Amino acid sequence: MSKYDIIVLGSGPGGYVTAIRASQLGFKTAIVEKESLGGVCLNWGCIPTKALLKSAQVFEYLKHAEDYGLTVKDAKHDFDAVVKRSRGVADGMSKGVQFLMKKNKIDVINGFGKLKPGKKVDVDGTEYRADNIIIATGARSRELPSLPQDGKKVIGYREAMTLSKQPKKMIVVGSGAIGVEFAYFYNSMGTEVTIVEYLPNVVPVEDEEVSKQLERSFKKTGINIMTSAEVTSVDTSGNGVKATVKTSKGEEVLEADVILSAVGIKTNIENIGLEDVGIVVDRDKIIVNDFYQTNIPGYYAIGDVTPGQALAHVASAEGILCVEKLAGHHVEALDYGNIPGCTYCSPEIASVGLTEKQAKEKGIDIKVGKFPFSASGKASAGGNKDGFVKVIFDAKYGEWLGCHMIGAGVTDMIAEAVLGRKLETTGHEVLKAVHPHPTMSEAVMEAVAAAYDEVIHL
Amino acid sequence: MSKYDIIVLGSGPGGYVTAIRASQLGFKTAIVEKESLGGVCLNWGCIPTKALLKSAQVFEYLKHAEDYGLTVKDAKHDFDAVVKRSRGVADGMSKGVQFLMKKNKIDVINGFGKLKPGKKVDVDGTEYRADNIIIATGARSRELPSLPQDGKKVIGYREAMTLSKQPKKMIVVGSGAIGVEFAYFYNSMGTEVTIVEYLPNVVPVEDEEVSKQLERSFKKTGINIMTSAEVTSVDTSGNGVKATVKTSKGEEVLEADVILSAVGIKTNIENIGLEDVGIVVDRDKIIVNDFYQTNIPGYYAIGDVTPGQALAHVASAEGILCVEKLAGHHVEALDYGNIPGCTYCSPEIASVGLTEKQAKEKGIDIKVGKFPFSASGKASAGGNKDGFVKVIFDAKYGEWLGCHMIGAGVTDMIAEAVLGRKLETTGHEVLKAVHPHPTMSEAVMEAVAAAYDEVIHL
Repeated sequence: MSKYDIIVLGSGPGGYVTAIRASQLGFKTAIVEKESLGGVCLNWGCIPTKALLKSAQVFEYLKHAEDYGLTVKDAKHDFDAVVKRSRGVADGMSKGVQFLMKKNKIDVINGFGKLKPGKKVDVDGTEYRADNIIIATGARSRELPSLPQDGKKVIGYREAMTLSKQPKKMIVVGSGAIGVEFAYFYNSMGTEVTIVEYLPNVVPVEDEEVSKQLERSFKKTGINIMTSAEVTSVDTSGNGVKATVKTSKGEEVLEADVILSAVGIKTNIENIGLEDVGIVVDRDKIIVNDFYQTNIPGYYAIGDVTPGQALAHVASAEGILCVEKLAGHHVEALDYGNIPGCTYCSPEIASVGLTEKQAKEKGIDIKVGKFPFSASGKASAGGNKDGFVKVIFDAKYGEWLGCHMIGAGVTDMIAEAVLGRKLETTGHEVLKAVHPHPTMSEAVMEAVAAAYDEVIHL
Repeated sequence: MSKYDIIVLGSGPGGYVTAIRASQLGFKTAIVEKESLGGVCLNWGCIPTKALLKSAQVFEYLKHAEDYGLTVKDAKHDFDAVVKRSRGVADGMSKGVQFLMKKNKIDVINGFGKLKPGKKVDVDGTEYRADNIIIATGARSRELPSLPQDGKKVIGYREAMTLSKQPKKMIVVGSGAIGVEFAYFYNSMGTEVTIVEYLPNVVPVEDEEVSKQLERSFKKTGINIMTSAEVTSVDTSGNGVKATVKTSKGEEVLEADVILSAVGIKTNIENIGLEDVGIVVDRDKIIVNDFYQTNIPGYYAIGDVTPGQALAHVASAEGILCVEKLAGHHVEALDYGNIPGCTYCSPEIASVGLTEKQAKEKGIDIKVGKFPFSASGKASAGGNKDGFVKVIFDAKYGEWLGCHMIGAGVTDMIAEAVLGRKLETTGHEVLKAVHPHPTMSEAVMEAVAAAYDEVIHL
């Protein structure tokens, strides 16, 4: 029986990153994967969707070429080619992970891994032993009882990125990152899109002003938005699909070719042997301590199967911490209050820390600053005036409580706030860090200035 | 005679920002401007060039639409419309400054301001008095004796952004930010461009690896590059212009429609009364102390006329510090070692701190990390694999000495390094600040990881 220092179950951005770091730290490591290396993120999530969204972004430029002093005729998309490009990018990345596994001397075990007591993993009938087993099996699209997915007319994100035919009409249920990214993509491609959101605001985890801005921007592009609305039933019997939507005004029946269900995720914790080993699960999540130990010694869990934010970068960070701790490094527990979240529709959204509402609910006396891109020179030059940066500081202690951005390229700008908050910056230190001109990043400095009544360009 | 607390001479990004901050601080403020509010930056520099470059970027998308699964016919640019858009953006920004002056109750005095002894300024015959006079008259395109500008065949940046007709062939002399931005723009528009650089590398202030990468990227797009090359004479007598270029291989005569001279700047310190007042100038710069006082009490100077980096954001920061000090605030002197520089061609360049060569020349034992965008998932999805992030740390003390980026969108990513360096971050703090996936900003984290042999995706 093969024996490893560490076996990682699942090769998503949690698992494969964990395996690489483990190997760097000198652990003899194996990784178990039943499908393609890279998991959902590389194959069915983060990466291929960004490829689709890039095609949409470029298509928008084609459609609005005149705004930039350019002309084109017959701007068209080839839906198959757009999807094919996305698959190509995903395949390339998966091959990249394959290369990294080899380079880091990590054994890749193909098959379905099942935990066994005594620190063993059964992969389709073959047993492997390890001193430490790390569960990183991730999650999949959650199914609502009222919205059963048939993979054809009612689909999840996975089908949404490989449809063989572009739908004419689409209903997107749920307006988290996945929902609004697909809504933007399909609308851009010419599909008539309606978003149905149960809560009063789209992207409901974001600051309310961000939600409102996205709603305005989306409506301008022709996306229909229904908030405080619920799909109570679907009828797939006809040619298309009919969804009964309940709102405060009553019930309405929407027709579409396809419904995308984007109402969150369900962890992959079934049939992986948690019960055999006796690992405690609570509300669909594996319970772990600060360094990802489950209740059973030698078994760890990271990523979407644990209670932290279900985000690729969280999974990677957790896995790295987990094996660094195993290697005896002095490591600090992850600060789940300083995890950025990004949404890659247009305008993009990026945020970290508390929203204004959350800060107020905590009873904190706050200073809020906001700088709209309409006042930014770079945004004007780039034709990117939609959106803003909003910052929230603790009025008494000066702590940077939250940063909320919506606009072009903000997903690459939030790192400044994450690092600043990690280093316990004050607002004035951000102000006195000279931001280059002309950039969108000046809006961060100006928003901070606005919080302290020192804003220049407003 | 009108009397002010502060008169600012020049309304560029140094002057107008200074005036706004001065007014916020309670000073009765006036600003003197002989042309359009906003100075070179808004009217002839930063902003209108970014508008031109945006058109070029979109035009590249049009030309390469197929890469994204899209098709177009007859992708063309309308050169006049491209220039017109740029002028429109500049005019809008200048009007914005006009609004800001009014909102902040700053008197705008139109005309040519000349300093007088006794803290007075003469503007075309009218005298104004102030307790403090701040010189912010900026700079203009420098003329080489061997390359006299006639504004038609041999031009500076100002003419380059408003040419009435697109040249078929252009020689760009000098490959600093201005030179390479115009080279990129005109090449993208279809002009045959040759860059002539005196030094061995293009963008010679940047890290050598950045220079090499830009050279590779530019050559791929068809830009001709001659380094260690000098224009010794020009002949404008014929239809076009002939430039004699001296290289190590001998002399060569290049023909073109127009030569853009982009060999640096000359400060605007003539005829503004410096001699009358007795203000000391050295090597074309007004000498100031840490808080921008000249040798004559009551006279200050900021921006391009002083020895710091001739950059818009430096001018703004200097002006703000200058008046905050005047207001009695406790302020720290500007750290000129932590000023980011940005170049907005494609790929973009952004950097802060020491280059590898500079660090070695200082005898510092360094750790260097580099992460190529070819290994980034977001870069693959976006079709932006050219470029990298390179970081330099002090091996002994862990100080983040320098950060050098070349690639898509890096001008908005450098702020993280500026803030991190200001807050005296260590490499491991950057590593443990969770960067969102998938973003280009992950490359910063990975480059830092590479410096410490912890890189994941290489």
